[in-house]
Amino acid sequence: MKDFISLNHGSGGKASQDLIKNIFIKSFGDIDSVLSDSAILNIQNEKIAFTTDSFVIDPIFFPGGDIGKLAICGTVNDLAVSGAVPKYIAASFILEEGLPINDLKIIVESMAQQAKIANIKIVAGDTKVVHKGKCDKIFINTTGIGIFYQDLSYISIGDQVEVGDKIIINGFLGDHSISVLGARNELEFKVDVKSDCACLNDLIQNVLKKKMRVRFMRDVTRGGLATVLNELSDILNLGIELNENEIPVKDSVNGLCEILGFDPLYLANEGKVLLVVHPDDANEVVEILRNNLLGKECKIIGEIVSDHPKMVVGKTKIGGKRIINMLQGEQLPRIC
Amino acid sequence: MKDFISLNHGSGGKASQDLIKNIFIKSFGDIDSVLSDSAILNIQNEKIAFTTDSFVIDPIFFPGGDIGKLAICGTVNDLAVSGAVPKYIAASFILEEGLPINDLKIIVESMAQQAKIANIKIVAGDTKVVHKGKCDKIFINTTGIGIFYQDLSYISIGDQVEVGDKIIINGFLGDHSISVLGARNELEFKVDVKSDCACLNDLIQNVLKKKMRVRFMRDVTRGGLATVLNELSDILNLGIELNENEIPVKDSVNGLCEILGFDPLYLANEGKVLLVVHPDDANEVVEILRNNLLGKECKIIGEIVSDHPKMVVGKTKIGGKRIINMLQGEQLPRIC
Repeated sequence: MKDFISLNHGSGGKASQDLIKNIFIKSFGDIDSVLSDSAILNIQNEKIAFTTDSFVIDPIFFPGGDIGKLAICGTVNDLAVSGAVPKYIAASFILEEGLPINDLKIIVESMAQQAKIANIKIVAGDTKVVHKGKCDKIFINTTGIGIFYQDLSYISIGDQVEVGDKIIINGFLGDHSISVLGARNELEFKVDVKSDCACLNDLIQNVLKKKMRVRFMRDVTRGGLATVLNELSDILNLGIELNENEIPVKDSVNGLCEILGFDPLYLANEGKVLLVVHPDDANEVVEILRNNLLGKECKIIGEIVSDHPKMVVGKTKIGGKRIINMLQGEQLPRIC
Repeated sequence: MKDFISLNHGSGGKASQDLIKNIFIKSFGDIDSVLSDSAILNIQNEKIAFTTDSFVIDPIFFPGGDIGKLAICGTVNDLAVSGAVPKYIAASFILEEGLPINDLKIIVESMAQQAKIANIKIVAGDTKVVHKGKCDKIFINTTGIGIFYQDLSYISIGDQVEVGDKIIINGFLGDHSISVLGARNELEFKVDVKSDCACLNDLIQNVLKKKMRVRFMRDVTRGGLATVLNELSDILNLGIELNENEIPVKDSVNGLCEILGFDPLYLANEGKVLLVVHPDDANEVVEILRNNLLGKECKIIGEIVSDHPKMVVGKTKIGGKRIINMLQGEQLPRIC
């Protein structure tokens, strides 16, 4: 095999087959749909979750991850926050002519590793190649299926959320955005922050298995915590109050945000989940989360209130209050 | 809303929401996963088909279709040839900054129309925006779920194919490739050929409902008929004999192929299915196909033989024989 992706690799013919055999099957194992067009899956339970995401992050390698790891974690997390157990992923690649095949190998192997960690199977795939300059190295789409073993489908709708419910986050905000910014060499100084990119399905299942009264979950990605909370308060027609002192942000990230004029509440994350839970269960949820490496720094950061419906209000560190709006413009493009 | 896609539309914030409301929901209706990350689906039957495809066709509008129509038909057909009934699609968009929003509207509306024709539901979505020059106008991924109402999962594997089985194609080959070439203005003459892009699920279901002994099906896309047949003979470890006189190709397409040095057997199609059926059912299958507009020009074009295993042999028009190999290079890039 030559060392760079060529248009032949996208022909559907011999070169495509070689690429599938030498790269994808080597890392993913036998993909069910390699020889046919569809994977055939046995679904034991009636309710499934179904989600899709395309990943266009720049750069494709960054501290703490790469576009492949991100593509698996992103879709696994979307399924997990719905209350389903992630099971199957279809992965589709758009490759730029000239991409080093070794880069593709590393990315595909990274996907395989994350799939193993998350205990999901990559069952279907597709590859397209476009001329040099017609995409940026590699874009990956992952579409996932999760299975509901308990009927928790209300969790993604949020219709069981009540006034007084506590809002919990599993750790530090903003690491992903800052690490990607650093990797882009757009900063004038070296940043020692790694992306939080991780599959959260185990962490979340630990909470659900213990029958904690989780009323809503969402992974906090593009648009940051502020955007998720604004969407939630809007759906609920209730208010949200945040204790900004409690929001976990690393000093290094906070410092950079001050210099750069960013607000960590709007920064993207790839390993953070926001949980809304019954107030009586909040402390136990925190305990469960802290037992997992990905939840060590979790905090109760606010609650659902009846005041100021459809509005997110932050109590600032010096005792004042501010309205936290939805993200208006684009803070950082191509962060995922 | 401004008239061109900007990076803000990919922020996950306010502008993203506006785009979803004003474009996607307007055409697709309420997407189940708009407010949550996953669509929640009720699956009555245990076996499902799952398939993914990214579409990067250039140009995005061509005679007989556009990238949106193609994205729906391509995934519907992948599901349909597995024997499943296509049901749900997740659609993910990568948009180039500067794409006219009106183009996006037309494409999304075209997807909605095809979804209606194919009786499938678009249930989940995602949108990313990249800087100008980092993709080519618009790429679309569609990932689909189909349901098996009969246990026909052997059809995509082909393990019931036997020597003597007949090979049937539902109509003219090569129209898609030629129409796209024409639309690219790469030819020095005007071409009056429309793409065959169409959803084949109804056509296929008509055959399956009548309990015809269909042993294998495949949609004939990238790599053309030659590639599908080579893959099939390879899996089966049997030979395939083609009557080239019977292969339906329009005179205009044949003429162009001769001038341009193309072989219609390697040209991509987007509305063609190859069926391998029990010899006693072949004539009835032809009759059923001819009752549908998309099968009017169907033909029995060959059969499975025990001679020359793993080899596709064409009987040429003048009585000779030739070996039809798999597509080696790339005949026409970005055809789908």
